[in-house]
Amino acid sequence: MAPTLTTPLAISLGDPAGIGPEVVAKCWDHRDRFGLQPFVAIGDSRSLAAVWDGPMAIIDDPREADSAFDVGLPLLHISSAENDLPGRPSLAGAHCSLDSLELAVGLARSASAAAVITGPVSKQQLYGIGFAHPGQTEFVAERCGVSPANVAMMLAGPTLRTVPVTTHMPLAEVAGQLSIGLVEARGRAALRGLQRNFGIAEPRLAVAAFNPHAGEGGTLGREEIEIIEPAIEALRAEGWRVTGPHPADTMFHESARARYDAALCIYHDQALIPLKALHFDEGVNITLGLPIVRTSPDHGTAFDIAGEDRADPRAMAAAIRMATECAAYRMATA
Amino acid sequence: MAPTLTTPLAISLGDPAGIGPEVVAKCWDHRDRFGLQPFVAIGDSRSLAAVWDGPMAIIDDPREADSAFDVGLPLLHISSAENDLPGRPSLAGAHCSLDSLELAVGLARSASAAAVITGPVSKQQLYGIGFAHPGQTEFVAERCGVSPANVAMMLAGPTLRTVPVTTHMPLAEVAGQLSIGLVEARGRAALRGLQRNFGIAEPRLAVAAFNPHAGEGGTLGREEIEIIEPAIEALRAEGWRVTGPHPADTMFHESARARYDAALCIYHDQALIPLKALHFDEGVNITLGLPIVRTSPDHGTAFDIAGEDRADPRAMAAAIRMATECAAYRMATA
Repeated sequence: MAPTLTTPLAISLGDPAGIGPEVVAKCWDHRDRFGLQPFVAIGDSRSLAAVWDGPMAIIDDPREADSAFDVGLPLLHISSAENDLPGRPSLAGAHCSLDSLELAVGLARSASAAAVITGPVSKQQLYGIGFAHPGQTEFVAERCGVSPANVAMMLAGPTLRTVPVTTHMPLAEVAGQLSIGLVEARGRAALRGLQRNFGIAEPRLAVAAFNPHAGEGGTLGREEIEIIEPAIEALRAEGWRVTGPHPADTMFHESARARYDAALCIYHDQALIPLKALHFDEGVNITLGLPIVRTSPDHGTAFDIAGEDRADPRAMAAAIRMATECAAYRMATA
Repeated sequence: MAPTLTTPLAISLGDPAGIGPEVVAKCWDHRDRFGLQPFVAIGDSRSLAAVWDGPMAIIDDPREADSAFDVGLPLLHISSAENDLPGRPSLAGAHCSLDSLELAVGLARSASAAAVITGPVSKQQLYGIGFAHPGQTEFVAERCGVSPANVAMMLAGPTLRTVPVTTHMPLAEVAGQLSIGLVEARGRAALRGLQRNFGIAEPRLAVAAFNPHAGEGGTLGREEIEIIEPAIEALRAEGWRVTGPHPADTMFHESARARYDAALCIYHDQALIPLKALHFDEGVNITLGLPIVRTSPDHGTAFDIAGEDRADPRAMAAAIRMATECAAYRMATA
């Protein structure tokens, strides 16, 4: 599929001292090989110039991105209060990354951009300027007027999509946080997201067990019996195609993956271990449950290699392509 | 490497109603393609005849296996009290599987067999005849006079070896079971096992974190700081090459796997998810810390497909090959 969008994709560059500017610039360099639709980057032009000597097309209106795209990397310039150097994060850079994110989301909300792709930010730096959300996802949800409880994070690679029920919490606390309602809500968000963003009319969801061997009938844990199975039953009662709870170790090989469209995983590493083992360089994070399409590459700022021309742009390219496809599905079904 | 052993490998067929007999027979059929050294199967001849019409060479002494191997599948016959049918497990079959295991271990202990490969048994059936061990591993350890605390299970595929610190327990109980001493003991067993069974003089062990993002400095859990890091320090102080704790989701892609010889994982699914995602059909379980070599294919009895000629022999073949290599390393360094 090579969908044509009527508006450009908006990409926030993320922290100016991270690898975001570099991977976006490399995506523009290789836009034909990667098969990328026109996009506009949002951030400080100096963060691009510090790591890249290609041509920029600084524009004022995203409508200029399409015609500018063959001339240079279209950029909506957001000036940082400091000239941030690669690998040297600052609070000014954190402000710049937040302003860029805010503008990207605003463009998508106002239909001036087809989707948002977010470059990597530093949570530590953001916390330093008073940012009170756990991450970009929750910030975007709030700006879209959606409760964070109703969004879900999907990690997607070429042959696997996973959705974690719980994310950033100590593993020993997961069991206490689980509830039938939570598993059900995340499952529903995953299923609706597969319909809305991926055009799958009757999505198939495979739910992972929490305990080894799926609890082996209760002898190795009771979360399957008390929480996961009732949640699956509730989703099935609504007509969804849901299987499980599956022993987590036997659901990620090739023939098992062919039997579902997404795997609902109970905790962070259960979702991320198989995704990154199989698709480390191409993992995309897509937020489900939003009125806009938002994806991001599944990597961080990598301050340690910023400015060394070593950052791999494939995950950013995959995030751009996935945003394009999801936006096209939404256009087609709107 | 194509090592030559001076004694045959001993393979217990496992539960006569499971897929053990079928996969062993298929290994003999394809012994050249799989590159297998002479072995002797141990179990009821009727369990083989029920699923396979190839030639058997029923022998009384394992020394006959070598010359018999080209004529038929060498078998030390252990009669079950019942004629067990594929897919129909019985308590008599469980007795037969246990007797077969006992004989295989005895042959290896007395140096009449080079190694033991164990076919899949049914724990449920074994518990029905009073078997009091959690599994075959602990039974073999006891027969070898080794405390189960000092053995470790390694799961091995062509590009990944993992060793779980804890195995069959509810996930919510793992944090409470962890201790510096336990992580250290399993790490040491893994390192020594890499030396002894795989001929790696200076093995590299990568230790996985327990919490997402390796606990992110304590904000997402403190097991890394309080337990895993001190255990790593203790092993390093002994001169071992140990790294970690690594975020578990970023240690199983190809370039990460190239940096270690085995991954020490904190819980069952952390070790098994990546192994089976990457090597589902070739996973081998090897018990470290024993005076003998013992491997097994990383699958169960699969009663549901027994007798249907659908069982995949690749994991059994991989278990036989790995036992051969490990036995050869031990011979070379004895």
